[in-house]
Amino acid sequence: MAQIRDVSKRAGVSPATVSRAFSDPSKLSKDTLKRVLKAAEELNYKPNSLAQVFRVKRTNTVLVLVPDIANVLFARVLSGIERIAAENNYLLLVSDTKDDIALERAGLEMVETLRADGIIQLGERPLGDLHTHPEPSKVPFVHAFDTPDAVPYPTVRINNVAAADAMASYLLALGHRRIGVLAGLKDRIVTRERLRGFRQALDSFGVPFEESLVEYGPYSMAGGAQSALRLLSRNRDLTALFTMSDEIAIGAVRTAMDLGLDLPANLSITGFDNIEFGKFCTPPLTTVMQPAERIGEVAMTLMCNLLAGETTGDAQQTLATELVIRSSAKRLAQA
Amino acid sequence: MAQIRDVSKRAGVSPATVSRAFSDPSKLSKDTLKRVLKAAEELNYKPNSLAQVFRVKRTNTVLVLVPDIANVLFARVLSGIERIAAENNYLLLVSDTKDDIALERAGLEMVETLRADGIIQLGERPLGDLHTHPEPSKVPFVHAFDTPDAVPYPTVRINNVAAADAMASYLLALGHRRIGVLAGLKDRIVTRERLRGFRQALDSFGVPFEESLVEYGPYSMAGGAQSALRLLSRNRDLTALFTMSDEIAIGAVRTAMDLGLDLPANLSITGFDNIEFGKFCTPPLTTVMQPAERIGEVAMTLMCNLLAGETTGDAQQTLATELVIRSSAKRLAQA
Repeated sequence: MAQIRDVSKRAGVSPATVSRAFSDPSKLSKDTLKRVLKAAEELNYKPNSLAQVFRVKRTNTVLVLVPDIANVLFARVLSGIERIAAENNYLLLVSDTKDDIALERAGLEMVETLRADGIIQLGERPLGDLHTHPEPSKVPFVHAFDTPDAVPYPTVRINNVAAADAMASYLLALGHRRIGVLAGLKDRIVTRERLRGFRQALDSFGVPFEESLVEYGPYSMAGGAQSALRLLSRNRDLTALFTMSDEIAIGAVRTAMDLGLDLPANLSITGFDNIEFGKFCTPPLTTVMQPAERIGEVAMTLMCNLLAGETTGDAQQTLATELVIRSSAKRLAQA
Repeated sequence: MAQIRDVSKRAGVSPATVSRAFSDPSKLSKDTLKRVLKAAEELNYKPNSLAQVFRVKRTNTVLVLVPDIANVLFARVLSGIERIAAENNYLLLVSDTKDDIALERAGLEMVETLRADGIIQLGERPLGDLHTHPEPSKVPFVHAFDTPDAVPYPTVRINNVAAADAMASYLLALGHRRIGVLAGLKDRIVTRERLRGFRQALDSFGVPFEESLVEYGPYSMAGGAQSALRLLSRNRDLTALFTMSDEIAIGAVRTAMDLGLDLPANLSITGFDNIEFGKFCTPPLTTVMQPAERIGEVAMTLMCNLLAGETTGDAQQTLATELVIRSSAKRLAQA
């Protein structure tokens, strides 16, 4: 690769002038600038971007902390982040934190030591809570999904309470009264919010809530299959399952079929997320559309604004969800 | 955050000595080194890693080029890469190239300009082919999946021919003779290799190959659903579909069910990859296990070795696959 001195020789200027042509071109005369850029192009010279980073303390890199990189939903969010990053010439460092707090702290340190300009964190337990205590960090930070209320950094999320209320109300409107809940992990904000939405729907239909009809477990197909087995063994009169993710729902469908149930005739099951598989599985899944790619795009846009000094630190964005009605939930047959 | 001069003051040494303690500690006396590290710890001082990078021209960062970050299989490979990277203190830059050659070239430039130490590329059209022409690049490069034969860089892949032969032989052994093929995109190495394996199996069972029973399309559920519709409309006597990915197979299952076929009684369908959904969908999918996480782990291990100067440039690794027999393919009923 051509070096700075090769360009300086060819253009007949000093190496410092070549350097300035790439870092602060307005300082040069038009003629000189033109000569340097022409020489650089002819020699295929690429200015050492690391040297530039060192000078301006900007890396044009954003660190994304993902709780599980192999999760379909997060992969789609990442795809949205990556699209906006590419448009704005940002690179993405991606770290799979596996929900490990030490790995999340390491991320914070990376920004403090100039490896990245800012952090986007997906999922639960936002790092932002760590670094606002004891004093707010200077690290540009955006959080997506499952954010607690009233935080001092930009966030993008959906209204989980309203979305869960809408989905549960749909089941209630179909005539279901004995509805089991396959919830996610009990300590998650998202789980608590979706359960609140479910209870809100029961209230408005005048149906009492029964804690014994709720089964908690991981947000996964295997988790859904196991929760469904426990819940259905205990309660043989359930006519519907309200689940907190499509993966949980798909696991529950597997269990119900293995138990010999005819779906949806014997049991209605709803999902949450609208992952692509829900459209192709049997029966095709009625669910809540979460705009995963869009969440990623908005998160990265907020980060770009933040780094450009164009956003105040607390821009909160809530994106719309919608019910996707397919065939896994049906009107309750008259007894 | 504490600065270098704070540490130098507290330890009673010059800032240059503090710097040396982190960059070249063997140059200091044991006593001095101890004093500096103690002061640094007490002040929670973090050496500016970017400055270190600039000095040693090592970023401890590896760029991963992914053709589609939202693809389940690539997400799992990425998860394996990330695990080994974390163990070896490497960071990952992830770029979704969307199969765009310009974006792949941009990746190469990032290494030349010291933003990353090396590149791991997943999927088709390895960048390695670009940058070996006209002269081999000095960029450390590892390729995973779909690599042409005899390349001058480390690769990790499976034996697609043998795996496809095994899967097709299983269908033939079950008595199927009219087998349709739902292939991936026609110009892909992986498609050609899996088709070769399929034909090899037909040969060994003495069954003639018919090009009209092959339908090409994208490696996706939507692609599989459409290819299946075209193929099944044209050929009503097929008793089995050999597909080139689980996503294609799941799309084909949807189409077959929508056509009113009883699966697997009327039609056997096999997949390829062993993604998690295949285990939970209906009918559970018979498929070929591709060790996706392991492929990622091996790719990153090869990269670590390459960067440590411990691997020659052409270490080729082929990982084992195995048939996963579930219930989507059944013995052909006697006519």
